[in-house]
Amino acid sequence: MNNERFNHQITFLLELDKLKEIKRQSRIIPSLRRENSAEHSWHIALMALVLGRDYGKDVDLARVVTMLLLHDIVEIDAGDTYAYDQEGYQDKEHREQEAAARIFGLLPPDQAETLRITWEEFERGESGDARFAQSMDRLMPLLHNYHTKGATWKSHGTRKSQVQKRMARIRDASPGLWEFAENLIDTAVSRGFLADG
Amino acid sequence: MNNERFNHQITFLLELDKLKEIKRQSRIIPSLRRENSAEHSWHIALMALVLGRDYGKDVDLARVVTMLLLHDIVEIDAGDTYAYDQEGYQDKEHREQEAAARIFGLLPPDQAETLRITWEEFERGESGDARFAQSMDRLMPLLHNYHTKGATWKSHGTRKSQVQKRMARIRDASPGLWEFAENLIDTAVSRGFLADG
Repeated sequence: MNNERFNHQITFLLELDKLKEIKRQSRIIPSLRRENSAEHSWHIALMALVLGRDYGKDVDLARVVTMLLLHDIVEIDAGDTYAYDQEGYQDKEHREQEAAARIFGLLPPDQAETLRITWEEFERGESGDARFAQSMDRLMPLLHNYHTKGATWKSHGTRKSQVQKRMARIRDASPGLWEFAENLIDTAVSRGFLADG
Repeated sequence: MNNERFNHQITFLLELDKLKEIKRQSRIIPSLRRENSAEHSWHIALMALVLGRDYGKDVDLARVVTMLLLHDIVEIDAGDTYAYDQEGYQDKEHREQEAAARIFGLLPPDQAETLRITWEEFERGESGDARFAQSMDRLMPLLHNYHTKGATWKSHGTRKSQVQKRMARIRDASPGLWEFAENLIDTAVSRGFLADG
C-alpha cells in the first residue's frame, strides 16, 4: 500500500462531504426542502443510467455517469449559482476554475489531472457524452420545478423564454427528450407554474 | 418516442426523490447532521471511482458504480436499518425484497429486471464487483464515525468486535484497504471514539 497516495485519496473523499451542505435552488418533491448538490448528482447519474440506452445514442454511459458524479464538486468552494442568475454567472467560470484547482489538487497528481479533464469536458459541453450529461442536469430541475408547481421559478420570477433558452441543451442531446421538455414547459405555463413571455 | 415506456421511466425517477428523505445513522463531518441515503450513495460511488484502480483489482468499475447508485433505493419503502441493529436485521431481507418488487417494478419490464438483478448481485455480495462495492459501503461509515469522534458508535453503544466483524467485508475485497481499516479501528479505540471489547 502506497500510504502517501492513499492519504491524498482519502483527503479528497472526506472533502466531498462538504458538497452535502451546498444547497441548490431546486426543491425536492416530498418535503419541498431545498435540494443539496450531492443528492442532486446522485439523482441525475441514475437518470442517465435509466434514459441513456433510449435517448443517449452513441454515448459512453460510464463516462457520462462519472461526469455527473463530479460535475458539481467545485461548488464546495464556488457555491451554487442559480441557473437564471445573470450576475452570478459573470464570474462563475473564474470561481469554479479556482475551486477545481484546489479540490482536484487534493488527489494524487495523475487522478487530479484525469478527473479535472473529465470535469472540464462536461463544462465545455462539446462532446456527445458531455452534451448528454448536461441534458440530464437540465431535465431534472425542469421536472422538480413542474412537480413542485413551479416553486423555484415563482420565487425568482423566472419566465418561459429563460427556461426555453436554458433547456436548448436538451435539444442538442436528444430530440425525443426535447419534445418532452417543450411540452412540459407549455403545460407549466398553462397551469400557472411558470410565467409566460 | 415511446410514451408509455418513457412515462414509466420518469415515474421511477421521480420516486427516487424519496431516498433523499431517508436518514441514515451516519453523521456528516461539517455539520454533524444525519446523512441521507441519496447523498451517501453519491459519495461511495465517487469513492469507488477514486479507489477502484488501486484497490479493486479486476473489477468492472462501471458495474460497481451502478450497484452503488442503486444499492439503497429499497430503503424508500423499507427504511434504513442500522448496521448493528440485530432486531431490524431479522426481517430486513423480506422488507427489502418487497420494496425492490414495487420500486424496480415502476420501470419498463426489461429495465426493472436488469436493475433488480444488479441490486440482488450487490446484496448477495458474492461476485468480485459486489464485494468491492460492499467494501465501499463499509469503509465510508467507518471514516464518518472516526472523523466525528465516534458520534454514531457512541450513541448506540457499539463495540470494537461488532465493527471488526462488519468490516470483514473489506478484507474479502482488498487486503490494502483492510489494513487501513484495522488500523483506523484500533486508533478509534485508543482515542476513545469506540468502546473496546
